[in-house]
Amino acid sequence: MLRLIERKRNGESIAPDEWQALMTAYVAGRVVDYQMAALLMAAFLNGLDRREASALTDAMLASGASFGATSTGARRVDKHSTGGVGDKVSLVLAPLVSAVGIAVPMMSGRGLGHTGGTLDKLESVPGFRTDLSLVRAREQLDRIGCVLIGQTPEIAPADRKLYALRDATATVESIPLIAASIMSKKLAEDLHGLVLDIKRGSGAFLPDLPRGLELAELMVALGAEHGLPVVALMTAMDRPLGRACGNALEVEEAIHALTGDGPDDLVELTLALGVEMVLLAHPTTTRAEARALLTGALASGAAARKFQDVIEAQGGNPSVVDDPSVLPQAAECELFVAPRAGIVTRVEPHRIGRGVVELGGGRTRVDDPIDHSVGYIIGVRPGDRVEAGEPLATIFARDEPGVTAGRAALRAAIIVGEEADAVLPLISHRVTAAGVVSWGTELAGMVTQRGGGVGNR
Amino acid sequence: MLRLIERKRNGESIAPDEWQALMTAYVAGRVVDYQMAALLMAAFLNGLDRREASALTDAMLASGASFGATSTGARRVDKHSTGGVGDKVSLVLAPLVSAVGIAVPMMSGRGLGHTGGTLDKLESVPGFRTDLSLVRAREQLDRIGCVLIGQTPEIAPADRKLYALRDATATVESIPLIAASIMSKKLAEDLHGLVLDIKRGSGAFLPDLPRGLELAELMVALGAEHGLPVVALMTAMDRPLGRACGNALEVEEAIHALTGDGPDDLVELTLALGVEMVLLAHPTTTRAEARALLTGALASGAAARKFQDVIEAQGGNPSVVDDPSVLPQAAECELFVAPRAGIVTRVEPHRIGRGVVELGGGRTRVDDPIDHSVGYIIGVRPGDRVEAGEPLATIFARDEPGVTAGRAALRAAIIVGEEADAVLPLISHRVTAAGVVSWGTELAGMVTQRGGGVGNR
Repeated sequence: MLRLIERKRNGESIAPDEWQALMTAYVAGRVVDYQMAALLMAAFLNGLDRREASALTDAMLASGASFGATSTGARRVDKHSTGGVGDKVSLVLAPLVSAVGIAVPMMSGRGLGHTGGTLDKLESVPGFRTDLSLVRAREQLDRIGCVLIGQTPEIAPADRKLYALRDATATVESIPLIAASIMSKKLAEDLHGLVLDIKRGSGAFLPDLPRGLELAELMVALGAEHGLPVVALMTAMDRPLGRACGNALEVEEAIHALTGDGPDDLVELTLALGVEMVLLAHPTTTRAEARALLTGALASGAAARKFQDVIEAQGGNPSVVDDPSVLPQAAECELFVAPRAGIVTRVEPHRIGRGVVELGGGRTRVDDPIDHSVGYIIGVRPGDRVEAGEPLATIFARDEPGVTAGRAALRAAIIVGEEADAVLPLISHRVTAAGVVSWGTELAGMVTQRGGGVGNR
Repeated sequence: MLRLIERKRNGESIAPDEWQALMTAYVAGRVVDYQMAALLMAAFLNGLDRREASALTDAMLASGASFGATSTGARRVDKHSTGGVGDKVSLVLAPLVSAVGIAVPMMSGRGLGHTGGTLDKLESVPGFRTDLSLVRAREQLDRIGCVLIGQTPEIAPADRKLYALRDATATVESIPLIAASIMSKKLAEDLHGLVLDIKRGSGAFLPDLPRGLELAELMVALGAEHGLPVVALMTAMDRPLGRACGNALEVEEAIHALTGDGPDDLVELTLALGVEMVLLAHPTTTRAEARALLTGALASGAAARKFQDVIEAQGGNPSVVDDPSVLPQAAECELFVAPRAGIVTRVEPHRIGRGVVELGGGRTRVDDPIDHSVGYIIGVRPGDRVEAGEPLATIFARDEPGVTAGRAALRAAIIVGEEADAVLPLISHRVTAAGVVSWGTELAGMVTQRGGGVGNR
């Protein structure tokens, strides 16, 4: 072990069989945490090359079980997002794609810091359980075609243990370590395709485009090495996605989106990611056909019914889809108005996300409890003209101090000035094994090109 | 803690009060080893600035007790070496300097890897105890003026705990961490001066001169900040020092040096370091006077008697000074002869040091037992002309396989060829708070200049 730490410290590579032996020994408790912590920091600062990232992915995958092939023969596709503020795409996308006959075994995480987590959002639904066993998850996936769970103890236990250590040693934000962690779990889902939503902008985990692209390209490459086609979209997180920020509020907005009444950006991003998922499952479909399939499932109510089925199967109250008022409701609810007339210069997602934590709706530590009811509905976007005193947002808090904290958060987050800052395009790039193309080019080819031909083999 | 790791990871500085709080919490067990390991690796790779090294030194010093002022009023000076092969200087120097009325509270370490340790050598003397309590060490220092011990549990416990973790996490070879570790212990000795023997060359811990000078300058600066005058000599470790390599063999050679029959290089280096110690204790003395004092103590037998007193006080058999045959004797003893006629090209200290470990005379792990009797006497130096079959060295081993291993080690270590490699000067530079000067300049000023005037304030 000391020799491995020394080599990584000196900027040398660790061989695939060494990564394998290391992870086996670590899970078995034969490598102590302080030695692994030193290795992680050396890896953080000196990097891992592609071969090492691949070997680490393999080793973490091999440390546990996997979903295995489905008995139904359905194509199986998933999506992973690097996380953002107001990002409730998974709640809409998983049932929607499942409604068109594609199996979606979605393993998500919890919120930490300023970004929310899908598991926390789902748990806003009374009774909803995200801690299914692998056996039950497999059964539900075969029966309903969709399951929304956390990482089970059987899946990639080496990743689980390593992630907890990274979290405690400031070694999370390393591109190869992130990529290996995500891919080891996604490979355990035995997918036919994986779509990545890589956020960019001030509210993203990796704000800068080059770093985001680096992560996207590494994950696409790791997928290719393991026979898994991966498509990544680079998407905007310089403002919150949709209007709702906060767990139950986001579930309600997701239900609106499933029933045809969602905010444009949420619906558009969900459809774009959905089209990629359909194309990965069925490469001979055209983009236009894929999109039509999905909009049809929204219009027919099939997507909303699928969400209802999943909620029911996982112990939640399915009537939430027809009546979102069964969700936990905040005690206090107050409008936040424009301090002056002008243009909304920006809506700072990082500040909104921290504002949700301040209300009790997020975590600063992994074991913090969460109040699902609190959050914000942001009624304006950068570029909107507003009058002094006009409502900009609604604060949902559990008490008066919460309202005061919420008001302070929104004052710092929603800036009204003379003109809007430039905003990022909702989707800017598409990354596949064939390379990076800008999203405009993709859109131009949308109707005529076959999915399988658009750089995605 | 996480914020501190993050900042060091990002190459930022940690403030003095933060280092203090960190070390207090670490010794109290409130900072876990895996977080400290991550911080150490970040510090190893991103460095510590001088202010941080100083703060870490302070914090480790403050974590424990110190010797406190002497009741005798004697000036107190010590020497520290970065370690080498055949380096038994401490065994000669400490009693010698003590014999001229200067108190020497020498805390040393054990051997690890290819370099030997003073404690192991001392323990070759039957009965000799190096694990004195601080109370007993203080008493002996006042009574005899010399004590030769290991780091007591009371001295810098933070350094003790941190060093064990560094050893297990490949974070030992960091100049600021090394400097802070050594200086925290030496400051706890409440010295009037400290002399450093910084080895260079292939057998040294830091083979390259620039790195060695960097360590020397940092330790001189840390001393100055704490009111402790420090003088460092850069000395040769491109060949073993003296002839004996191995614990009991080195004690015997040290006794020869104390009784006027030591190898030239050992005697010369000991006197040079001793002169610096005398000058630090008595800045108005001249170099010539200091040297005369020391050579007088050798010639009169006062230095040898002082060693005898120390051995007796620490439970060892004092008759070893008159009769070294009371030291453990190796069962097997065999000559190693020249494979061909020629010039001794080099004697590789690293290979000799590893060869001692192979015989059982050193450690690869901290808890390995040691056979004090084994080792080598090297009869030749680079540049010596030898005939085929002429004895070059003697192997002292516990059995026949040991002799075979020793022969292989010497074959690889003592190279006979057409001409000698260039050798490093025994002493090449002198480093003080006033800067670095080459040793030639120093020697030229030896007789006329006052010690206090030679860059040492």
